[in-house]
Amino acid sequence: MRPKIAIFGDSITEESFCQGGWGASLAHHFSRSVDIVLRGYGGYNTRWALKVIDRVFPPGVDWVPIAVTVFFGANDACLSDRCAGFQHVPQDEYKQNLRSIVSILKRRWPETKVILITPPPIDEEARLRFPFIENPEGQPERTNEAAGVYAKACMDVASECRLSCIDLWTKMQQIPDWKKACLDDGLHLTEMGNRIVFEELITKLKENGLRLETMPVDLPLIGEIDPSNPLKSFEKI
Amino acid sequence: MRPKIAIFGDSITEESFCQGGWGASLAHHFSRSVDIVLRGYGGYNTRWALKVIDRVFPPGVDWVPIAVTVFFGANDACLSDRCAGFQHVPQDEYKQNLRSIVSILKRRWPETKVILITPPPIDEEARLRFPFIENPEGQPERTNEAAGVYAKACMDVASECRLSCIDLWTKMQQIPDWKKACLDDGLHLTEMGNRIVFEELITKLKENGLRLETMPVDLPLIGEIDPSNPLKSFEKI
Repeated sequence: MRPKIAIFGDSITEESFCQGGWGASLAHHFSRSVDIVLRGYGGYNTRWALKVIDRVFPPGVDWVPIAVTVFFGANDACLSDRCAGFQHVPQDEYKQNLRSIVSILKRRWPETKVILITPPPIDEEARLRFPFIENPEGQPERTNEAAGVYAKACMDVASECRLSCIDLWTKMQQIPDWKKACLDDGLHLTEMGNRIVFEELITKLKENGLRLETMPVDLPLIGEIDPSNPLKSFEKI
Repeated sequence: MRPKIAIFGDSITEESFCQGGWGASLAHHFSRSVDIVLRGYGGYNTRWALKVIDRVFPPGVDWVPIAVTVFFGANDACLSDRCAGFQHVPQDEYKQNLRSIVSILKRRWPETKVILITPPPIDEEARLRFPFIENPEGQPERTNEAAGVYAKACMDVASECRLSCIDLWTKMQQIPDWKKACLDDGLHLTEMGNRIVFEELITKLKENGLRLETMPVDLPLIGEIDPSNPLKSFEKI
């Protein structure tokens, strides 16, 4: 059986197989070597993720992913006194929840590489133009500053647990005109935003020893098949 | 565990998670309900597929896909006396190999919906402009006529085995300017070509009783979570 990489997160994970999405790009990159298992849950924060983690990754299931991405925080960082306040999780609890998620994954699968991803930056003005729910106060439910605080908290947990972390909040803001270039509704990712996640993730996987070039390929590649005796290639498999 | 759909075929399956690819679109469509298992092997014909099928779907593996697409023929239909002749499989053997593949899948998984997909049409002129291997004769290694013969053979096997079949060869040629609109190198699919496969496949899955709307969703959707008591939604899961 092929190795698997599970991607666990909120809507930015759930939607990662959209046109140009980072999950699809990951599946394409590893098309002959790794299965990508999509476990994205739109709107979820770390508190809810922790409640459902045994349903997402049932204990006793006989597959061990070689890597898991944990990509939460965009919902935790909703401001508590605004329209999406029910998704808010205080910063200290967010850190504690991330630690618990990591600890559950590492206890179950000690060899699995866990990679954290911070929430992306927020374009507050676009959040007002594309409300997800009724917003009578007319204030953005997320701010870039709050997202940054959660991104920092995510980096801190990664460093504490000695895990790789993609600091998406910082990375994206290095792109010229990042609000338009990387975000399509002030929160979710454009194709360029998706490409950044994909490229950063490939880099982090490599840093963890998981590179396409050294992974077993599932069955002989066409270039390895002898045109004068193709069936010979399948004798030794 | 989520249900799975396996997609089994040649390069048009292997590359189906590219930008706008039909496999990625399928994974996106079913992002909260079905895992898509990619098993595409570039360059393979049905003879080779049959040799490796027990490696692709190992007997005794404990997952049963709800559906499998079988998408071969583009390589079988290579002309025997041209540069890709080593990939050629005679038409009668192609039919027999397809029957064997179907029979192995149905014996292993009697309830699984098997959906056949015919090879796409061929733009011969583009095949000369984008050679995959050395082509000293300067003749296209595939012709549209031959692809049509294999498409018809695939339809015949589907009808004989009472399976759904996507007649891609015919469908695509109904699109105005299909050579440019659907094919990017005379064989592989453009975004529009990919969209046709995706849409046809969704239709065939529905005809087989597999529609998104009636499938269980993995964990509560954000719209089903009570903002005044979010955790209540996770008590009953």
